[in-house]
Amino acid sequence: MPLAALVADPFASTLALLALLWIAAKLGGEIALRLKLPAVAGELAIGVVLAGLVRVVPGFPDLAASAEAGVLANLGVILLMFMVGLESTVPQMLQVGLPSFRVAIIGVVVPMAAGLAGAWLLLPSGTSFIVDLFIGACLCATSIGISAQVLREKGASDSREGRVIVGAAVIDDILGLLVLVAVSGLAAVAGQGGGMPWGSLGRTLGLALGFLLVALTLGRWATPHLFQLASRFRSEELLLPLGLAFAFALAWLGNLAGLATIVGAYAAGLILEPAHVKFLEERERHSLEEMVHPLVATLAPLFFVLTGARVDPTALFAPSTLLLATVLALLGVVGKYVSGFGAGGGLRSAVIGWGMVPRGEVGLIFVAVGATLQVNGQPLLTPDIQAGVVGAILLTTILGPIGLSLVLGRASTGRSA
Amino acid sequence: MPLAALVADPFASTLALLALLWIAAKLGGEIALRLKLPAVAGELAIGVVLAGLVRVVPGFPDLAASAEAGVLANLGVILLMFMVGLESTVPQMLQVGLPSFRVAIIGVVVPMAAGLAGAWLLLPSGTSFIVDLFIGACLCATSIGISAQVLREKGASDSREGRVIVGAAVIDDILGLLVLVAVSGLAAVAGQGGGMPWGSLGRTLGLALGFLLVALTLGRWATPHLFQLASRFRSEELLLPLGLAFAFALAWLGNLAGLATIVGAYAAGLILEPAHVKFLEERERHSLEEMVHPLVATLAPLFFVLTGARVDPTALFAPSTLLLATVLALLGVVGKYVSGFGAGGGLRSAVIGWGMVPRGEVGLIFVAVGATLQVNGQPLLTPDIQAGVVGAILLTTILGPIGLSLVLGRASTGRSA
Repeated sequence: MPLAALVADPFASTLALLALLWIAAKLGGEIALRLKLPAVAGELAIGVVLAGLVRVVPGFPDLAASAEAGVLANLGVILLMFMVGLESTVPQMLQVGLPSFRVAIIGVVVPMAAGLAGAWLLLPSGTSFIVDLFIGACLCATSIGISAQVLREKGASDSREGRVIVGAAVIDDILGLLVLVAVSGLAAVAGQGGGMPWGSLGRTLGLALGFLLVALTLGRWATPHLFQLASRFRSEELLLPLGLAFAFALAWLGNLAGLATIVGAYAAGLILEPAHVKFLEERERHSLEEMVHPLVATLAPLFFVLTGARVDPTALFAPSTLLLATVLALLGVVGKYVSGFGAGGGLRSAVIGWGMVPRGEVGLIFVAVGATLQVNGQPLLTPDIQAGVVGAILLTTILGPIGLSLVLGRASTGRSA
Repeated sequence: MPLAALVADPFASTLALLALLWIAAKLGGEIALRLKLPAVAGELAIGVVLAGLVRVVPGFPDLAASAEAGVLANLGVILLMFMVGLESTVPQMLQVGLPSFRVAIIGVVVPMAAGLAGAWLLLPSGTSFIVDLFIGACLCATSIGISAQVLREKGASDSREGRVIVGAAVIDDILGLLVLVAVSGLAAVAGQGGGMPWGSLGRTLGLALGFLLVALTLGRWATPHLFQLASRFRSEELLLPLGLAFAFALAWLGNLAGLATIVGAYAAGLILEPAHVKFLEERERHSLEEMVHPLVATLAPLFFVLTGARVDPTALFAPSTLLLATVLALLGVVGKYVSGFGAGGGLRSAVIGWGMVPRGEVGLIFVAVGATLQVNGQPLLTPDIQAGVVGAILLTTILGPIGLSLVLGRASTGRSA
């Protein structure tokens, strides 16, 4: 049909891919639920399967390579964290500030030490100490999106444990950034006998903390005024586009300050409270949370399936990297698990510990940074070491939601809306 | 901050752009409403303004070039048409089948004849008859998205006139396809003295009609079974992802059959009825329409702003093309306006006529097809003629919603949710 092809829309194949991804996500989630696992583990696993099919079936669409699906997946995790933020308020988070801080500190120090020791024992004796240090750094990362989804599935998003996990993950984002800056700085000066880059560390910390401080104080003060101004508009359907504009603007600004975009989106959700937007909510007869929910239900599964699809099974199961990956994953799980004991105050430490386990895309960003580092003109990480660390990150990403789901109890299958 | 840039997320600038687009869309819509114009006209106009700023302000983000925003805008119009489809049923549309058919036929024949005559009078005498024919073809196009949005704003989506407009636009999509196939076929054989490509025309018509027939009968029969199967799943948040998967799959299949993706998405909405998905709707406590609505409210404005941003003001206002553009736009408006009289049966012909006026992205696709055509190895359309036709299409796209809004009456500012 060369003539019908005249009006062939290049976007049509994206639509077909999205339809496939949604059906796959729901099938994967269903299989996981029947196996008493969280749905998100099934979505990750079906992603791995689909990526495997790309290698085996000729012409099968390569989802990991689809820029269009990637855009929607990125939006999915940002909207998920915005919604998690909407479920809490700044005072509620300050209440869990100290336990979160203890969990975050332990969850950085222990995995760092454990990863460093593990790398030192497993890697050949000639390996630079910076490499061991960097592997430890990768085990510090926390990816909150997956745990947030498990908490939603189990109806535990607004439990105190849920708040401690999210709070610790936000603090972890800053600590992880500092660790990255320190290791990168050490790598840069390793040849010249330099030391710790204290100046860079101070600037990085100041910028990240400064952003959060300004957002949570000035932002929280300004928001009601902004939305009251908007409520003078005669236009309809204002609340959701303007709420999202606010969240995305904060995600962008936070990223300029060195934070992950999901941290900025989460902060936006934390700042926005029903009282700030009540005029618009009354007029539109739906709360912001109610309207963000369908967006999350649509786009977040794409993020989880694509996260799975980005796994390279050949890197994971190569015998040379399997030992390194397994040991690092074990150390990574144990290191974050013990961080749960830092919470104290009658909080379920196992829930918090397991919630901190997944490294997900944050860990992979760490590896990507490491791949650009050089010591004395040589790349810091060999391909074998990179594959081992990636394998460990993926294992924690699969094990995390399973462990969290188990300790949250199979009984509670409460709705998440 | 070279070290904070370590974790700079390339997606962050997309988030900033989206925030800007939403704020701009709502500002533009508000200004339009205050001028007693439909909000969508303001969204289109603010897009033109933003595109102008790209030329004037160094470093201003080029929204028309953003692939990420383009993905979301494309989704926006597809979701809009899916939602319009959800608001009607197949029997309701069959009821307006005959009036829609008359409107569609008149709306193709009259603009075609008028455009042909106008082009023959205005263009230099040496111009090929195929060019006149092609310009007539471009005036046949109907872009339903903008009118659908005006109908929503005025609370007239489910009026009989609204249904006739949408029904006629679907038939127009098939007729427009046939016209394109005919003109392209004539251009291909122009040098060799061939005639009308009847075989291609028959295959094109059969394929497009066949798709709609199968979708509206077999699809309508199968859908309840499919969603009943899905309702046995234990997973949550099934209805929206599976509903969208259905819509997107039909949009893709329809495009394979030569139809625009929005026609397939509209057909999917028409097929899906509350009775088909009642088990899932009961479980999730929200109807499919309610859940699609926030997606449309978020993404459709992006489509309208980007449609405006794709206007090239220099092409529109060049003196050499201004006369051609103005005359063709006038003929295009009158040609579609008179099609409204085809509806009969006590329907408001002015509402229907104005609803058919915008050519929007469908007309631009026609021009893009024309730009690829050659006669005797020479391009069919000169850049001047292309600019004139594009100008005419843009004028109808701006005038259409304004006219429709005026004839729908300023009094009815009913909510569109």
